[in-house]
Amino acid sequence: MSGIWCICISAMYNQVAIILVAPQLGQNIGAIARIMKNFKQSELRIVAPRDGWPNPQAEFTSVGAIDVIQNAKIYDDLETAIADINYLYATTAQVRDMNKSYTTVRDLGPHYSTTRGRVGIMFGRENCGLNNDEIAKANSIITIDTDPEFSSLNISHAVGIVCYELFDHRTREDLGNTQDLATKEDLELFFDHLFDELNKTGFFKTPDRYKHMSRNIRNIFSRIDSLSHNEVQTLRGVIVALAEWDAI
Amino acid sequence: MSGIWCICISAMYNQVAIILVAPQLGQNIGAIARIMKNFKQSELRIVAPRDGWPNPQAEFTSVGAIDVIQNAKIYDDLETAIADINYLYATTAQVRDMNKSYTTVRDLGPHYSTTRGRVGIMFGRENCGLNNDEIAKANSIITIDTDPEFSSLNISHAVGIVCYELFDHRTREDLGNTQDLATKEDLELFFDHLFDELNKTGFFKTPDRYKHMSRNIRNIFSRIDSLSHNEVQTLRGVIVALAEWDAI
Repeated sequence: MSGIWCICISAMYNQVAIILVAPQLGQNIGAIARIMKNFKQSELRIVAPRDGWPNPQAEFTSVGAIDVIQNAKIYDDLETAIADINYLYATTAQVRDMNKSYTTVRDLGPHYSTTRGRVGIMFGRENCGLNNDEIAKANSIITIDTDPEFSSLNISHAVGIVCYELFDHRTREDLGNTQDLATKEDLELFFDHLFDELNKTGFFKTPDRYKHMSRNIRNIFSRIDSLSHNEVQTLRGVIVALAEWDAI
Repeated sequence: MSGIWCICISAMYNQVAIILVAPQLGQNIGAIARIMKNFKQSELRIVAPRDGWPNPQAEFTSVGAIDVIQNAKIYDDLETAIADINYLYATTAQVRDMNKSYTTVRDLGPHYSTTRGRVGIMFGRENCGLNNDEIAKANSIITIDTDPEFSSLNISHAVGIVCYELFDHRTREDLGNTQDLATKEDLELFFDHLFDELNKTGFFKTPDRYKHMSRNIRNIFSRIDSLSHNEVQTLRGVIVALAEWDAI
């Protein structure tokens, strides 16, 4: 598999392999297939399903997503199921004391965008999740914030929120693409322009204050969601107008 | 019920009434109770459940959320169920041709923050959703973006994503509170200040251009995530410096 092909697949569809480790209930597997398809995911891998395979209850519960069930791949063990995966996420209810990178599901979209190659996301058993040996195989851990006093999510809801976030991120990226997103260079030129003009006014006063204030200002503008190239030009127009106007 | 009490409840817990209109399957009601509790929602109202009430299947499927099931209120009709609701959302899979305000579930948190009093969110039947008469009672419609070719979400997943968004928004607000978030008034004073200075420079040229450019500029600054009061003051300091400096 060439690197280019991998990146292309990843960027075009946000497609991941949803990997269920020893799921117990057919109705959960069916509900997972359905919510995957709602959010344009299609690759389901199942490791050692408790009730065997095929599973009529899974087929019944999948409703219009029977294709996801029929195309599901079944494995005897996790090692085989993840053999071709380049980047593996594990999902857990709580942060565990492991030397791993963590991301909340809210930040999964941007985090996923930094991965390369085939991506898999593991979900554990209904009654006890993933064990530490399984989690150890992952590159990174996804957590879903819930009420800490009632944190056990139904597995199909956990899959649903993960797929929702991936789909939403992809939709936002698509919108961003059509709006001609600002590049890092656009933003750097804007900061150069702004700091240069502010410098002339004596705004920064001392080198220490320059360091502190320029960092604060960078921090503000870097948090504008999906800033476009045209918007940066608008901001630069504002600087020009304010700076060049002679009040006297 | 006093207004102050309403606002307090609303702001403290992001608590809404989850209103199921004529749900069919007990297992869905149970799954809804569970996902509600995962995300700290507790008020379940059920209008005309098909299989009557109590429903053993709902109790069984709710797992640890039996309290949500036991405290659920049952109504014969929607009018009675929403009699005390001040702001009502309806959920639909697609945008319908109705004269209503729409919000995607992704923007529900900020939208919810603008509501006052008791808030309810209606979910329709498993097989056909809410009808137009029911939707007409709502103040606003929540849509959940999915693959348009497979948009029918399981009702418990729809409730789950709504509750997830409300919970996530609340968590972010809590984080934001420690950072002294900017108010709408802070932002309006900033815009007044900026537009006033730009006006003096002739930046806007014509009333039409004023309308267009001021909207663009508002749009840019309104997208800064978790802008704090201090950061607005920093931006106003930048305006003062640029505008008052005499280049001659």
